[in-house]
Amino acid sequence: MIHTIGFDADDTLWHNESIFDRAQQRYRALLAKYHPAAEVDRVLFQTEMRNLPLYGYGVRGFMLSTVETAIELTGGAISAGEIREIIALGQEMLAHPVELLPGVAEIVPALARDYRLLLITKGDLHHQERKIAASGLAPHFHAIEILSEKDGPAYSRLLRRHGVAIEEFVMVGNSVKSDIVPVLELGGAGVHVPYHITWQHELGVEVPPNQPRFRKVDRLTELPLLLPGL
Amino acid sequence: MIHTIGFDADDTLWHNESIFDRAQQRYRALLAKYHPAAEVDRVLFQTEMRNLPLYGYGVRGFMLSTVETAIELTGGAISAGEIREIIALGQEMLAHPVELLPGVAEIVPALARDYRLLLITKGDLHHQERKIAASGLAPHFHAIEILSEKDGPAYSRLLRRHGVAIEEFVMVGNSVKSDIVPVLELGGAGVHVPYHITWQHELGVEVPPNQPRFRKVDRLTELPLLLPGL
Repeated sequence: MIHTIGFDADDTLWHNESIFDRAQQRYRALLAKYHPAAEVDRVLFQTEMRNLPLYGYGVRGFMLSTVETAIELTGGAISAGEIREIIALGQEMLAHPVELLPGVAEIVPALARDYRLLLITKGDLHHQERKIAASGLAPHFHAIEILSEKDGPAYSRLLRRHGVAIEEFVMVGNSVKSDIVPVLELGGAGVHVPYHITWQHELGVEVPPNQPRFRKVDRLTELPLLLPGL
Repeated sequence: MIHTIGFDADDTLWHNESIFDRAQQRYRALLAKYHPAAEVDRVLFQTEMRNLPLYGYGVRGFMLSTVETAIELTGGAISAGEIREIIALGQEMLAHPVELLPGVAEIVPALARDYRLLLITKGDLHHQERKIAASGLAPHFHAIEILSEKDGPAYSRLLRRHGVAIEEFVMVGNSVKSDIVPVLELGGAGVHVPYHITWQHELGVEVPPNQPRFRKVDRLTELPLLLPGL
């Protein structure tokens, strides 16, 4: 019997990966005279992964990796003016307004009447807090938890802190790797709501077969009918 | 009667501003052929303050501001290779080992026997968590709170969440602005332990006169004798 719903934020409640995607398109265009798009993407992702232990998740680390990659890919030939443009791309991402996904503005307040809602997200503390404030959704959540990583131990600590039994908990999100599998492994329920773009880092993890507490839906508005069966 | 002690982390439990300071010295040296040190410092601080609403606190935002400032100060004449060196300076800051301040390794476990300890810091979630883990001090703290800002409302929310009455709370830290004044204003106690360098952003705030619950000490080891009188 579900009592508490954990919601991921980026690409579950509001658009995020599409903002990265548009910035990366403009980044590729800036470097097009040096390298084909696929090579730019490959080296950027490599740089991001190399820097992840140092930077963690979020736009500022992405920005630093785009600058570093541009210098590397051009053998130092890129101009300071072009680097300034790359920084401006990231600053636009940080200043981008929060755009809720379809149905979110209705379904979150509706579910808050019957369930305890937790917002569980990872990334930059400062940027996530600004997005949560701008979303207008904060009053519907019992608590907001911004984590540096969303894995089994992190979910365990969080649920213990809020006194939530794992049997009564469902996590809802777009990332199989960060939102679904760690919670299913703990014995909780998971509802996967795919976003049309997934960051390469979040790919490559599958839901194991025969998971009675797992559902996949196209949109969040399917939640109310589905929750009593979890 | 004090029951709970809040500890700031950077420059209270371990060195931080000195790491920024050394990096900034090398940054000035890199730009010395373009501008005198005072001008570099002035424009860098201006850039940091302009970007603060977008970046928040922490090394990654500092890194982005150093790159942006270098481009601005050189009118775009700086080379990609020099920008790579500036990024490397920041990466070294992030990788810098945690060096505890004198007496911390003894006084924190000792106080943990008689008081409930909270670690209350602001900045990058990921970097702060890494430093806390590296410090070895985490087991002595009842909770670790990484905030995007340390002001009155943030302290109120935090103390409410932990069920701490303000009369029973003392905050210990090196920043009058972030650690002392907001807590005194709420009715709590404050112990100021200055660090030998203070970031310009944290300056300009004074403790109001006649604060019976305020103390200033040279080192944390003075705490045990002083706490019963607060």
